[in-house]
Amino acid sequence: MVFGDSQSVARLRADFDRQGAMQSMGITVADVAPGRVILEMPFNPAFSQHHGFMHAGTITSGMDSACGFAAFTLMDAESEVLTVEFKCSFLAPARGQSFRFEGNVLKSGRTLTFTEGRAIAVDAGQETMVATITATMMAVRGLKA
Amino acid sequence: MVFGDSQSVARLRADFDRQGAMQSMGITVADVAPGRVILEMPFNPAFSQHHGFMHAGTITSGMDSACGFAAFTLMDAESEVLTVEFKCSFLAPARGQSFRFEGNVLKSGRTLTFTEGRAIAVDAGQETMVATITATMMAVRGLKA
Amino acid sequence: MVFGDSQSVARLRADFDRQGAMQSMGITVADVAPGRVILEMPFNPAFSQHHGFMHAGTITSGMDSACGFAAFTLMDAESEVLTVEFKCSFLAPARGQSFRFEGNVLKSGRTLTFTEGRAIAVDAGQETMVATITATMMAVRGLKA
Amino acid sequence: MVFGDSQSVARLRADFDRQGAMQSMGITVADVAPGRVILEMPFNPAFSQHHGFMHAGTITSGMDSACGFAAFTLMDAESEVLTVEFKCSFLAPARGQSFRFEGNVLKSGRTLTFTEGRAIAVDAGQETMVATITATMMAVRGLKA
Repeated sequence: MVFGDSQSVARLRADFDRQGAMQSMGITVADVAPGRVILEMPFNPAFSQHHGFMHAGTITSGMDSACGFAAFTLMDAESEVLTVEFKCSFLAPARGQSFRFEGNVLKSGRTLTFTEGRAIAVDAGQETMVATITATMMAVRGLKA
Repeated sequence: MVFGDSQSVARLRADFDRQGAMQSMGITVADVAPGRVILEMPFNPAFSQHHGFMHAGTITSGMDSACGFAAFTLMDAESEVLTVEFKCSFLAPARGQSFRFEGNVLKSGRTLTFTEGRAIAVDAGQETMVATITATMMAVRGLKA
Repeated sequence: MVFGDSQSVARLRADFDRQGAMQSMGITVADVAPGRVILEMPFNPAFSQHHGFMHAGTITSGMDSACGFAAFTLMDAESEVLTVEFKCSFLAPARGQSFRFEGNVLKSGRTLTFTEGRAIAVDAGQETMVATITATMMAVRGLKA
Repeated sequence: MVFGDSQSVARLRADFDRQGAMQSMGITVADVAPGRVILEMPFNPAFSQHHGFMHAGTITSGMDSACGFAAFTLMDAESEVLTVEFKCSFLAPARGQSFRFEGNVLKSGRTLTFTEGRAIAVDAGQETMVATITATMMAVRGLKA
């Protein structure tokens, strides 16, 4: 496990900050631990669907990023992380003042990392799980070369 | 099949225009037919990930919307469409000047509609399939009441 | 919640016993609670793949049944349960003397129930999570009529 | 592409024949081409669910095998194929005298291969698509060593 040294955390935050999508949607890092990342996002009408809830694609972006960065915390220093695939279920309308995206590593391998996560809506102080994700992440080496 | 009359198409476009997420990402309707919708989006650095490709969540937003509206074209006039779940696979980096999102209905039922779709990147005139989706959509009645 | 009365449990076990597939694979009910079902299966070479592990399809059958019956425990007495879709990830080879399939309800609705589950291999007393599932189940009424 | 020489086809059929699960369910190879495999199975009450349709897990076994072997046809001679994950949707009850499982490669890479497939029920001469699959397959080298 290469994570835990402050260099890796710095590297994660630098990668995160370079993601236009995260900035555009207002998603920020709330907590990072080896194999676990929590992101947060305030309600944003610019990413709603036609009933005023957050769009499924936006909720997915948050969950995918949480899982991808959770996988990244356990990869070696030469690796970048790419999403192979994910499946998301939408349990309830994404209604709330803010949203929390949790990503956890189920199993970390040299090439593939299996993750799962969820999206929690916070509405008037009450928390509701609105979506779940399971995602396969891949360590890619030499992508920047 | 209620679709085909101009009222339904108008209703679809009105719903689409009310989606903040679609406007924010610059996704527009390219073609609509019963059980089939095509959306388009120019490359947008505001929704890239850290390698400069379009973010998986953005590609997913486009595919999900194409599938959801494809399902919607076959629903009765009282129905709204909600995404139950989807699974997306990312076959290649989403690199290109523009992207096309295709959604098709596999089977339409009173409550559930099964759909599939894909994302095509257009890069210097060459087309590459960069992602696929299979999604379950649900007809919900009385949501606005 | 209609479950908890002995009639519902009896109905679940009767349905389970009528499943040729469960009998053929040697899968039995280990534990039932509202929203949660555990099934068990000894290693069976008749359902292996070519490396001698249990076949992914067999592991899936166990996880799907655990989730389907977990959903069923929270449905009303007139409902049958059908699988709408599932996604399974295979974290490790399914090697072991026996296997345990756990199914849990995440959210139960009148029509759709969201579930998740996992497969645990027991090998020389050591437990390994070899697969996960997320499944959407549907309550169907009047199927026997 | 290593497939096409008769040795590869022989290797595929030998692997298939060693799969206890395929034999137990009565699934056989109908057609093989580079990146495409078709399997067949007669209705088998030993693998039904409680309404007399084929069990979702059995349908999945057939589709998973078709996709896995389709991926295998494009792998080098040292590779074995393992299922990373799949998602299956069940469009209609699996009712019929026989079933056909089609597996196709969408994109083949050195490590990962993306596939999709479907299950067709043949009932009194009429064909119905009863299920779809998208699956990620992995080439594993040195598994037998």
